[in-house]
Amino acid sequence: MPTHTGNYTITMERCPSLLGFAAVGSKKEADGPIGNNFDIISSDALFGQKSWELAEGQMQKVAAEKALSKASLSPGDIGMLFAGDLLNQITASHYGLRELGIPFMGLYGACSTMSQGLILAAMMVEGGFAGKSMAVTSSHFCSAERQYRFPLEYGGTRTPTAQWTATAAGAVIVGESPSPPYVRSVCIGSIENKDVKDLSNMGAAMAPAAALTLGRFFKDTCTGPDNYDVILTGDLGEIGGTLLAQLMERDGYKLNGKHADCGLILFDKEAQDTGAGGSGCGCAAAVLCAYLLPRMRAGKINEVLFMATGALMSPTSVQQGQDIPGIAHLVHLSTKKSGRPEVS
Amino acid sequence: MPTHTGNYTITMERCPSLLGFAAVGSKKEADGPIGNNFDIISSDALFGQKSWELAEGQMQKVAAEKALSKASLSPGDIGMLFAGDLLNQITASHYGLRELGIPFMGLYGACSTMSQGLILAAMMVEGGFAGKSMAVTSSHFCSAERQYRFPLEYGGTRTPTAQWTATAAGAVIVGESPSPPYVRSVCIGSIENKDVKDLSNMGAAMAPAAALTLGRFFKDTCTGPDNYDVILTGDLGEIGGTLLAQLMERDGYKLNGKHADCGLILFDKEAQDTGAGGSGCGCAAAVLCAYLLPRMRAGKINEVLFMATGALMSPTSVQQGQDIPGIAHLVHLSTKKSGRPEVS
Repeated sequence: MPTHTGNYTITMERCPSLLGFAAVGSKKEADGPIGNNFDIISSDALFGQKSWELAEGQMQKVAAEKALSKASLSPGDIGMLFAGDLLNQITASHYGLRELGIPFMGLYGACSTMSQGLILAAMMVEGGFAGKSMAVTSSHFCSAERQYRFPLEYGGTRTPTAQWTATAAGAVIVGESPSPPYVRSVCIGSIENKDVKDLSNMGAAMAPAAALTLGRFFKDTCTGPDNYDVILTGDLGEIGGTLLAQLMERDGYKLNGKHADCGLILFDKEAQDTGAGGSGCGCAAAVLCAYLLPRMRAGKINEVLFMATGALMSPTSVQQGQDIPGIAHLVHLSTKKSGRPEVS
Repeated sequence: MPTHTGNYTITMERCPSLLGFAAVGSKKEADGPIGNNFDIISSDALFGQKSWELAEGQMQKVAAEKALSKASLSPGDIGMLFAGDLLNQITASHYGLRELGIPFMGLYGACSTMSQGLILAAMMVEGGFAGKSMAVTSSHFCSAERQYRFPLEYGGTRTPTAQWTATAAGAVIVGESPSPPYVRSVCIGSIENKDVKDLSNMGAAMAPAAALTLGRFFKDTCTGPDNYDVILTGDLGEIGGTLLAQLMERDGYKLNGKHADCGLILFDKEAQDTGAGGSGCGCAAAVLCAYLLPRMRAGKINEVLFMATGALMSPTSVQQGQDIPGIAHLVHLSTKKSGRPEVS
């Protein structure tokens, strides 16, 4: 049985393992700093499909199938599948993954979806509800621009605070195994908002939620930044990341170079002109699967807080003058199943 | 620990109880056959808000608060909250429930959301992840018409196969208790589609998914319709319900008057001119909370299969010529914690 640590943190007893994972991207992601780490890159952003929306679904399918094959598993081995994306009614997930035939639960957590799905997938294994489970998510620059901002053909100018939606997908399979990395504990976020209304500055809207969850976790576990190799947020970008550091310092925690953001790992924001950094469900998912998890498997890093963050507005809510609520879900990933997290 | 029954059914050991529940509706719902059973009715469909979208969020908030007060609980007693709705980016849930401050996970399952949320909430208690958890959902006729069909002001004619989106919300609190009703087992659906493309006939699009899940559950548990007082789907409406009966008979199960549909319970479809019946996440949620659960508490019915169904398309996917995938999640609710389900 899991145990409750403090008010908000759930500590796993079985510590489910990440059995397989895969990252899929397109040309811009391939050109970025971790481009060589992707499992699959398609230079055709349509992934052979007729629309951007179907392309995004296809990315999820390819990512899921690749994660399965890397773990030597088939869809029938997976008891439960959690997936979501940024599209209205999460159609990339529904249309992309339906052929797998796995019992399915759709999520909406905006760019926090990878954390959310990974937490639920781990709980299914920890709680004995599934032998193996899976979490998949994606984003696509073209489908997101069309839905959230302007038609691509319009060629709208972007503000420097805006982030660049990744064309990427990630899939993770969770199950019991003696091999790391393990899910040690999780901290599910509450919705937090500080009256940010600028749709082109979502990092600022999400930073208070990230600070809330991270502060709760540190307090619950009596740990701090020094206990971890890296605190990886996704996707606060440059502005949100700076705000997070300020908010944490206000609360007594110096991040001291321990913080990194998926949006600043996926793209070289200067060379690739991606504004304040990458974003989208697929950004955190791809950085998790292409960069973080392989480094943990290789023993290069051992104690990680992975915390994907989501901005929970819609174009309609913003047009109606509402502020942008944020959320952040934290997963403590480790190469050991017990003991206090420490870094050498 | 839960046990696996057959390939798809998960049987609970602790059998979490439904500690509190509440249903909120508006004028048309009050005028329907179960109008007197609602906890809260607002004749103002705006619920005092400035937009239909905010009104829908307010309904969720009022439903959640009412369920809490009926169970003599406060938001701080709830470890985890699952919520979703039909709006793009599920903003009714995000904006409506954010003030509660409960660790939050957003779902998208279209009209299957009440089953999906109830399953996850029950798993959190069964698995020891939360002492108490909550599931909330809603739909609003006006916000749904604007987003999915036509502006209300346009006054478009509806086809007889179309269903009427309920303006309603429901909230359920799950925890351990010696008092029924209990969650005995659950069967999570896979995405199913049979090439239905008519956005005005979603019952037909969802019926194959309902038949798939119900057939899997019967096979897994070696039971049939005769073991239950009622098999309550939400919301196949009249056409989808007829199709479900045909599909089940093909597979060797005669529903024999055991099947009822939330869409046909919420509204008097002739007198209220609601086409093929009610629909929307709030329809199944309100019928569950206003009708089914009170009757179980009163001992009038004892063995129930509650199976909310969802149509997983978006306006964009349909405009692009895609068919409509469906899903159905089943929850076996019972007034006893063990033994084979039997009705007298």
